[in-house]
Amino acid sequence: MAPRGAPAPGLWLYGHHAVEAALANTRRTVKRLVLTERAAEALGKPLLARSRPEIVDADAVSRLLPPGAVHQGVALECAPLPQRDLSDIASAAEGQRRIVIVLDQISDPQNAGAILRSAAAFGVAAVVVQDRNAPPESGALAKAASGALDTVPYIVVVNISRALKELAEQGFWRVALAGDGDMPIKDAVSEGDIALVLGSEGSGLRRLVRENCDAAAFVPIASAMESLNVSNAAAVALYECRRG
Amino acid sequence: MAPRGAPAPGLWLYGHHAVEAALANTRRTVKRLVLTERAAEALGKPLLARSRPEIVDADAVSRLLPPGAVHQGVALECAPLPQRDLSDIASAAEGQRRIVIVLDQISDPQNAGAILRSAAAFGVAAVVVQDRNAPPESGALAKAASGALDTVPYIVVVNISRALKELAEQGFWRVALAGDGDMPIKDAVSEGDIALVLGSEGSGLRRLVRENCDAAAFVPIASAMESLNVSNAAAVALYECRRG
Repeated sequence: MAPRGAPAPGLWLYGHHAVEAALANTRRTVKRLVLTERAAEALGKPLLARSRPEIVDADAVSRLLPPGAVHQGVALECAPLPQRDLSDIASAAEGQRRIVIVLDQISDPQNAGAILRSAAAFGVAAVVVQDRNAPPESGALAKAASGALDTVPYIVVVNISRALKELAEQGFWRVALAGDGDMPIKDAVSEGDIALVLGSEGSGLRRLVRENCDAAAFVPIASAMESLNVSNAAAVALYECRRG
Repeated sequence: MAPRGAPAPGLWLYGHHAVEAALANTRRTVKRLVLTERAAEALGKPLLARSRPEIVDADAVSRLLPPGAVHQGVALECAPLPQRDLSDIASAAEGQRRIVIVLDQISDPQNAGAILRSAAAFGVAAVVVQDRNAPPESGALAKAASGALDTVPYIVVVNISRALKELAEQGFWRVALAGDGDMPIKDAVSEGDIALVLGSEGSGLRRLVRENCDAAAFVPIASAMESLNVSNAAAVALYECRRG
């Protein structure tokens, strides 16, 4: 038995959007769905039919989760998603450009989750992360992603530099986002399939990762601030890619 | 005496950028500066001269702060900033457009802090919030703002709708950001002084607030995602204002 006050073991997703997307994802193996009457109504019968829902009060949901988790009355125990690899990136649809995001050493689940959410919003084909120093699938990641963890392919690779070479072979123009880049983002992403490569806020992109990019671009900002939050920088770059 | 394990009372800022900006801000009254040898070196002598620094180990810094605070070895006790009002917004510099951000009911300090950080990055003249339901000055807000709490005027008003009327009198074109807006953001902010008005993610802008705007604009996103994270939406709108 878990110690009193400790969250339940296993992978628990929580929050309406995260759980809704997981239940709608046929690749997601569902174990336990624990939720309030009201959260069950919000999800609706077709999704609830994927498991045997356990209706409880909100406090009982809280007890399954880490302290402070904003769960909106719903928690889902499930298996991590089956692994994907770079060959799973879909071919470009007619007249559509493809965008992939590559995250180097971004370990904070809030930032990575917000980037996943923007990835879904801007029609990104995949988010690629390295197995070390990337946030593992977790409730916090899924909550910040607001459902996007189950809709945008999240591809875990062993080596980012090698992944960048493979992306080049698939026709992607690889753009590193860096404060000291050579050109503004709007000049770097004007056409073609784009892989946007983002590093951690503290140390930036590692040398070898940057060397495997075709261009380094910056978001033009005032000198009063050193950098943007990484998820904000990602959103701006994605917006620019789709702005037309 | 504070209970064992509870953070020290008072307003404590933490993290290198937040404390650096507070020490550099002559409007900020400094009380105690508690930091490691290494953090002191990073700040440098001129800033340290604003107080009598107490050199301690990292654990002693942690004990002053809420659990989990990422303090980078430095904590500063200080007074809240003196209040400002809308008449403090600077006149437009020659050839420069002014941008103001208005936050309606955005209570999460992470989001509000990230918006302040982007505000500094994109040269925003002020961030306006309502006294109720806005995050108070806090260590978490200042940390997420990465110094911007001490560089961008943060104006607390009693009534957002009245503030919007005053902004119109100052010549601002007021643009509400809303998923169901009437035009894409790039058509709404093409010229002039702009007040960008953002609501909470859950409930959006309140009716009366929206009625006091001149236009409602959206960031174009895929139907797969309901909305962007609010700080990401703010960053995109600010980028568009400055894109030229």
